[in-house]
Amino acid sequence: MYKSEKLAQNIRQMIENGVWKVHEKLPSLREQTQLSGYSLMTVLNAYQELEAQGLVYARDKSGYYVAERSTDLVNSKQPIQISLSPKVQINSVVFNYLKSIQAAEIVPFGSAFPNAELLYNAKFMQILAQQAKRKSSYNNQNHMPPGNQDLRQLIANRYQLQGIACHADDIVITSGALEALNLSLQALTQPGDFILLQQTIFYGAWQAAERLGLQVITIPEHPQFGFDLASFEQALKQYPIKVCWLMLNAHNPIGFTVSSEIKQRIAELLYEYQVYLIEDDVYQELNYGSSKPLPVKYFDQHQMVLHCTSFSKTLGMGARVGWVYAGPFSDAIQHLQLMSTLTVSPLLQNTLVEFISHHHYEKHLRQLRYNLEKYKKKFYQELKNRLAPTCKIYYYSSGYFLWIELPNGLDGQVLYEQLIQKGISIAPALLFKPDHASQHYMRLNCSFEWTAEIENAVNLLADTIQQK
Amino acid sequence: MYKSEKLAQNIRQMIENGVWKVHEKLPSLREQTQLSGYSLMTVLNAYQELEAQGLVYARDKSGYYVAERSTDLVNSKQPIQISLSPKVQINSVVFNYLKSIQAAEIVPFGSAFPNAELLYNAKFMQILAQQAKRKSSYNNQNHMPPGNQDLRQLIANRYQLQGIACHADDIVITSGALEALNLSLQALTQPGDFILLQQTIFYGAWQAAERLGLQVITIPEHPQFGFDLASFEQALKQYPIKVCWLMLNAHNPIGFTVSSEIKQRIAELLYEYQVYLIEDDVYQELNYGSSKPLPVKYFDQHQMVLHCTSFSKTLGMGARVGWVYAGPFSDAIQHLQLMSTLTVSPLLQNTLVEFISHHHYEKHLRQLRYNLEKYKKKFYQELKNRLAPTCKIYYYSSGYFLWIELPNGLDGQVLYEQLIQKGISIAPALLFKPDHASQHYMRLNCSFEWTAEIENAVNLLADTIQQK
Repeated sequence: MYKSEKLAQNIRQMIENGVWKVHEKLPSLREQTQLSGYSLMTVLNAYQELEAQGLVYARDKSGYYVAERSTDLVNSKQPIQISLSPKVQINSVVFNYLKSIQAAEIVPFGSAFPNAELLYNAKFMQILAQQAKRKSSYNNQNHMPPGNQDLRQLIANRYQLQGIACHADDIVITSGALEALNLSLQALTQPGDFILLQQTIFYGAWQAAERLGLQVITIPEHPQFGFDLASFEQALKQYPIKVCWLMLNAHNPIGFTVSSEIKQRIAELLYEYQVYLIEDDVYQELNYGSSKPLPVKYFDQHQMVLHCTSFSKTLGMGARVGWVYAGPFSDAIQHLQLMSTLTVSPLLQNTLVEFISHHHYEKHLRQLRYNLEKYKKKFYQELKNRLAPTCKIYYYSSGYFLWIELPNGLDGQVLYEQLIQKGISIAPALLFKPDHASQHYMRLNCSFEWTAEIENAVNLLADTIQQK
Repeated sequence: MYKSEKLAQNIRQMIENGVWKVHEKLPSLREQTQLSGYSLMTVLNAYQELEAQGLVYARDKSGYYVAERSTDLVNSKQPIQISLSPKVQINSVVFNYLKSIQAAEIVPFGSAFPNAELLYNAKFMQILAQQAKRKSSYNNQNHMPPGNQDLRQLIANRYQLQGIACHADDIVITSGALEALNLSLQALTQPGDFILLQQTIFYGAWQAAERLGLQVITIPEHPQFGFDLASFEQALKQYPIKVCWLMLNAHNPIGFTVSSEIKQRIAELLYEYQVYLIEDDVYQELNYGSSKPLPVKYFDQHQMVLHCTSFSKTLGMGARVGWVYAGPFSDAIQHLQLMSTLTVSPLLQNTLVEFISHHHYEKHLRQLRYNLEKYKKKFYQELKNRLAPTCKIYYYSSGYFLWIELPNGLDGQVLYEQLIQKGISIAPALLFKPDHASQHYMRLNCSFEWTAEIENAVNLLADTIQQK
């Protein structure tokens, strides 16, 4: 567990125990630094996470105060909500959306990709240019599924550093994480099977379910912990679920990272109910803390978890290479790959081998995380200053999205349509929870430097929201 | 029509008219050159095509003779054979096969890819290295489906040069031709639909049918013309076929190129029966003649044809970029793409734009065709010298495969298993006609320079065949 997470948990406990009452001021950042012995940054992160969870609120230049909360939220005794979703036609929604935001002149606050400027790495390009001159980069002999042996070994090493047993043969290299996720789902299901999704989730999961003819069960997010274990277990009991597709680190679009305790329990329940997990962990490297959060895969003693991630979110579309920790499902996934995309560019695979084995990747990640945190904090502060307190901004210490609850029930889709006319894209809730009534949310990409152009766009965004 | 094709047709007509009788010697190459006014190369190509069609046979150093043929073959009055194929489990066959031939020490006569040495292009690499240093090669903004606008325009221009109306918006860039073919089939069919395949065809078609749960109808190859129009029309009449998947240029694995007359009739029948065609034309640029053969797309007045091809067979896996002339189905195919692989490497798309627009591609293709013809002719001659006349070798003037009928009913799969033990791969008939009884065929990749190592492997291959 991270220091800030640990501190946030302690403070939460103290609030629940009545140490500070509602609307009472918490110790200032400086006081808390002295009290806890943690750095100012750790304390700030803890406070911001508590704020995102709705446990405290900030008053400008005055500090953090204990928020008013309904008892059932704090005690997490809310009624379990499980929905059997109707056949959702998500695909056309997403297609039209993606088409509308492609134009170069649109300010891409709706984009799923980090600002390409941040992913640019001169060393990567230099290695790529060198590799481009080698004949071996054009030969598929060593690059057919499951992919380049050296690259798979380097990936396996990274798992081992996290304490996760992994052999190069457990890994299958794919065309980005999206292919890893889709092939995993295809390998594990038949049309008509039940899968479990989070109520709010990356739209790719909804699309895959639609394409493969699967029945979707959703469980709601837990307002405090992100993941609702009670609903999860209830759903596993109630439905013949074959596979779960979950995102538990730097959740897209909301942003939360679920605690290790919950992940461990998820792994136990998977084994108990013999349900497979496709773990979408594409933002694992974008946690601002000193180490990356553990995946459920870490707690998986029985090969129930297929862990999917990629280099696309850290090195960009020029390195559109992903992978799945497939373990015993490696052959099944390669079968599917040989029928669809066949192989991932030998050139990119070779380049990644050089880049990673010479330790350039870690350095790049450090710089990337530093910038993402700086930009996201700036966006968060600027938005706080412009938006009314009824407009709740979820800030978490990872990734490059802010999830924003819109005031007065303003529908994200309505806002999106207004803003796109003004040359600004946002990602409305509809993309992530197409079957759900509460649509007054949006996701904002804030991986941009605070330029005059960005400031103008944020002003326009805030004005449009406030006019409602 | 090519000169050699025209000449072959004339000679065929004269044989059928009784100008030369069975076992009578045809004019020598030199005589025929003088008679016809064509070049020696054209005459040789015509004779070799007639030989491949079984109309003439060669005697070493003595010349070409009229072959004995059963009347029904020459008159193409064979009974129509249409099969409704059972659910074929092709996928495991192909998977195990591809795995077995991957090892670096295996002589890759079974490979589907041309020898990577031939695809190497220094200019391409140089441009790729330059592009690798540009930030725009890492930005997906202009490279999302349907793909880079400039690249699509260059591809459209190439269609226009062939006399095929084409707009950049008709094209969707894909991860190789395999994705183009698969997405096209997925866009046009529902599980349970009927599709029509050639009896002998690239195994990817069988795999796609299996994966999408389609019913397969096959029609046999015509022994003389490659494509059997009568069976085709009969099948369209008899079954509710939704889509055909055909290969008519440099057919894989057999090698024939169907005449323009037949292609025109296919286009008419497609419209008459309202059936779509997915045209696999991956070898369109590998015809040794001066111009590339027309696709059915050329005769398609009603947007019934989706034409699929790629750069992978001409520039190698380093340029794993394909496309489909999707026309009105562009949106449907992009839908599917956004759910699976999302986008094709911006770097490769940019590189191809530079490479093609500076006319390097045509030069590369000329050199590639020159080498492929040289190597394939050498293989053909050397095999003729080593194998008994009962072992029929199909030679056609394109691509890099020889299709070989094995003597004494020797099963291709049996031969494959013996040869793989000796470190040589071949592609047995089972991969291409999994539902058919006659398995005494193999496909041989002959895109290799005639080195001592290759000669040893060919000797071993010939010995193993002759020992049967």
